[in-house]
Amino acid sequence: MCRWLAYSGAPVLLDEVLFKTDHSLIDQSLRAFDKTNTTNGDGFGIGWYGKRDVPGVYKDIRPAWNDMNLQALAAQIESPMFLAHVRATTGSPVQRSNCHPFDYKQWLLVHNGLIDGYQKLHRDLAFSVSSELFPLISGTTDSELMFMLALSFGMEADVQAGVARMAGLVEHVAKEHGVENSLQMTLGISDGESLYAVRYSTEGNSRSLFYSASRDATAEIAPDAGRFSRGARAIVSEPLSNLEADWVPVPEASFLTITGDKISCVPFSPIPP
Amino acid sequence: MCRWLAYSGAPVLLDEVLFKTDHSLIDQSLRAFDKTNTTNGDGFGIGWYGKRDVPGVYKDIRPAWNDMNLQALAAQIESPMFLAHVRATTGSPVQRSNCHPFDYKQWLLVHNGLIDGYQKLHRDLAFSVSSELFPLISGTTDSELMFMLALSFGMEADVQAGVARMAGLVEHVAKEHGVENSLQMTLGISDGESLYAVRYSTEGNSRSLFYSASRDATAEIAPDAGRFSRGARAIVSEPLSNLEADWVPVPEASFLTITGDKISCVPFSPIPP
Amino acid sequence: MCRWLAYSGAPVLLDEVLFKTDHSLIDQSLRAFDKTNTTNGDGFGIGWYGKRDVPGVYKDIRPAWNDMNLQALAAQIESPMFLAHVRATTGSPVQRSNCHPFDYKQWLLVHNGLIDGYQKLHRDLAFSVSSELFPLISGTTDSELMFMLALSFGMEADVQAGVARMAGLVEHVAKEHGVENSLQMTLGISDGESLYAVRYSTEGNSRSLFYSASRDATAEIAPDAGRFSRGARAIVSEPLSNLEADWVPVPEASFLTITGDKISCVPFSPIPP
Amino acid sequence: MCRWLAYSGAPVLLDEVLFKTDHSLIDQSLRAFDKTNTTNGDGFGIGWYGKRDVPGVYKDIRPAWNDMNLQALAAQIESPMFLAHVRATTGSPVQRSNCHPFDYKQWLLVHNGLIDGYQKLHRDLAFSVSSELFPLISGTTDSELMFMLALSFGMEADVQAGVARMAGLVEHVAKEHGVENSLQMTLGISDGESLYAVRYSTEGNSRSLFYSASRDATAEIAPDAGRFSRGARAIVSEPLSNLEADWVPVPEASFLTITGDKISCVPFSPIPP
Repeated sequence: MCRWLAYSGAPVLLDEVLFKTDHSLIDQSLRAFDKTNTTNGDGFGIGWYGKRDVPGVYKDIRPAWNDMNLQALAAQIESPMFLAHVRATTGSPVQRSNCHPFDYKQWLLVHNGLIDGYQKLHRDLAFSVSSELFPLISGTTDSELMFMLALSFGMEADVQAGVARMAGLVEHVAKEHGVENSLQMTLGISDGESLYAVRYSTEGNSRSLFYSASRDATAEIAPDAGRFSRGARAIVSEPLSNLEADWVPVPEASFLTITGDKISCVPFSPIPP
Repeated sequence: MCRWLAYSGAPVLLDEVLFKTDHSLIDQSLRAFDKTNTTNGDGFGIGWYGKRDVPGVYKDIRPAWNDMNLQALAAQIESPMFLAHVRATTGSPVQRSNCHPFDYKQWLLVHNGLIDGYQKLHRDLAFSVSSELFPLISGTTDSELMFMLALSFGMEADVQAGVARMAGLVEHVAKEHGVENSLQMTLGISDGESLYAVRYSTEGNSRSLFYSASRDATAEIAPDAGRFSRGARAIVSEPLSNLEADWVPVPEASFLTITGDKISCVPFSPIPP
Repeated sequence: MCRWLAYSGAPVLLDEVLFKTDHSLIDQSLRAFDKTNTTNGDGFGIGWYGKRDVPGVYKDIRPAWNDMNLQALAAQIESPMFLAHVRATTGSPVQRSNCHPFDYKQWLLVHNGLIDGYQKLHRDLAFSVSSELFPLISGTTDSELMFMLALSFGMEADVQAGVARMAGLVEHVAKEHGVENSLQMTLGISDGESLYAVRYSTEGNSRSLFYSASRDATAEIAPDAGRFSRGARAIVSEPLSNLEADWVPVPEASFLTITGDKISCVPFSPIPP
Repeated sequence: MCRWLAYSGAPVLLDEVLFKTDHSLIDQSLRAFDKTNTTNGDGFGIGWYGKRDVPGVYKDIRPAWNDMNLQALAAQIESPMFLAHVRATTGSPVQRSNCHPFDYKQWLLVHNGLIDGYQKLHRDLAFSVSSELFPLISGTTDSELMFMLALSFGMEADVQAGVARMAGLVEHVAKEHGVENSLQMTLGISDGESLYAVRYSTEGNSRSLFYSASRDATAEIAPDAGRFSRGARAIVSEPLSNLEADWVPVPEASFLTITGDKISCVPFSPIPP
């Protein structure tokens, strides 16, 4: 189980969001609210949009809470759109290539959840990755494979459709192997223009996901910043503070899009192969 | 706050003690019983006596729970005497040279606790390290400095006296700087022949320390090993199982010595400079 | 381009072979004889047979020359059969799962060389790995994939046949993709009983490989050890000293087997699928 | 022996200078021109002035040539003034706290060279660090100690005087311990406003140091950037290209200051204590 965060709005220094809050993502790496898995110490990563066509990505295998580089970088990097992730492995090795976000061209993706029975399904799923993308697989996680599958299925042209076909394939292959309730996911995705988020699980009992419904809610995550724009929005796997006013749960089986100050939330269901 | 373990007895493979128990030291790195500091994810180390005059030492900055090297090594290394430590930093950088055990010639030392006000006292304490030992300081922890001070004060000839003079100096220098309750420590020390342990704090409220009073108690830490010798003993900062029968608390302000199957426990008090 | 070493004989401490020679493998990590690729600083690994059914494996992403853990471990670990490897990546990420040796049950494998056009061939080759072994792939190198393919093709029952079928498949798939001279390899393999080595390349111009023909030659690699048994043998990708007397080049396209003090060397050719 | 680079001018993306040249600093980490020490693979660091009062710093213990984070960061970070360093240890452990640049408030420092006999002199030199700065020492290098000494001796008010007093102390203490030719250094220093560089050695045979005398020379280090401002300047420990036109050697025993497009170079000599 992991934790992640995505931000869209006027440019902010990353540490205003990642470090300077009561229950920041970095705090969650050491001690999350969740009872069963309080420590997310198996690596971390940030991806942000800045000066280049492609986003910057910084990942390491240390716990986020003790990485001085992360603190120094987050104090310097300013961005209008970024994703951050702290990892608790469900079995894959702790190596940078297994840390989120995964990137491809201008795309970034983070994942909280798992493919149940991944050991059994891994090979069949890998075969469905397009031959162009296959050589780009650099790690061994279910999460990276989900990203590569969604891209293989047209995510660049239609994010929701690409993700829905990926989810459909996972559930189809799982059923063939006798795996029930195979998919559990909250996803954060960005192309630098919009933030996308998906909350879905085969069993209909997905991990939590929230977004900030107002500037005030966003401001909770960085009260001293004093510079959040009207349309600033954050999406989080677990609320960043105890004050939960104005944090809106993303409904079960939903697809959320944030573009500038526009938010849309529509039902999400897998598209079988 | 850290956790540590020391073993003396017939040779065992390290993983029998470090991994294969209900509440092993490796489990404690991820989730200790203690409420206020459950995660010891800021590095770890093992030191063991084997083929050479000097002990082997293996340290890394990763959390102990996700290091595949540690698992592989602990499955191969067999030793009649070893110490292991999982770290939660109280401020010093997470780097190998700040991981325990510290070693010098045939000596090993692990520490749980801290010198309060260490930032203020560091310089004066460092100047009391002998000029022969000073260049060997490779990290920046209070723990390594305590080791170097005890060695400077004759620990090689008389362990208890060396440690007592170190403790006396720390309290003396602290008082000069207006620091109350400066020293908090449980120490595990070995020269390959004996295990030594110290439980002491200036305020008289030291962190917990236990030793196994019987082979049965020792066997609790590795029930499947089936090979613990009669005199096998372990010292631990936190009991390794919920069954606490036969785990004996080391009394406040005490110095414990285990040599073969002989155990002695005497009062400990600092020797002022 | 990488460098590797394998040893078989009476038990020795690893540092006698890895560190204490004029041109040791660790020296080669910093400065090899070869002109075009003098630095092998992209990780390293050792695998040795000891107390358990499976070998011990220790890998890290640091350069071998600056890893204090490796020095400490090599000074303690004694073994009658081991492999060691220093890596210079040909493109795959520098992560532990891409370091050699690769292990499976009692088997170890190290590789110097590459599959040319690996990016293009990777997917087709991966699909030929058996479904039992596929989930065990933990990295992204051509070397690990060659190991998994050889195992899929029966290496456990017949080492030479498994490797030959792997080589045949690589060349076959390469030809389909228009890749000439696809395979370049020296391999070191062990099951704890025998050492196996293969020297082969599609173009018939393979990287160097040598073995020690006599105890005197083996003794060159650790002149102070004074304990090499009569049958002690080493296989190396580059001679470990300037004195090359009694180091025998493995002929082009050959398969070498060392079992105790018996050596056999037979022609090797790929078996097409 | 190490290599370093400093830049001052219109803002550039770091990778234009660090990666995109024929003989870039990153290339030098793998293979420098110098015959005796071609590999600088024991860690690296960059420090740059950006959004905050204090500079950003990113360091790691990996070789610079294989760190994907460095490539990604250098492609995003734009700065008008930065220092970069690749390390070849002269004995101190390879850990982040021993990587350059060292930072204090708005100050950065990089060093190529060494204090000869440092093991002997370390303690006496450490005692001369002011009590305010002593607790900030986080590593064990001679380089960091030189920085702390120069700061203790007034570098913030007068850079040349602070460095000269540091050099004077080192030579004085060395003489007391019978060490000849104790100091060998090229230093790069910045406060975000100016670049300072020092070339000095006790024996009068200092390591090389160059600066670019013209925009054309600076442009050599990043020919595709096409955006270097008129006053852009670089200081380098080894020329960044084979075309050495317009790279000016800093004379033996000199102190160089670059502020905007003004350059001054004056004699440097130590100030004895």
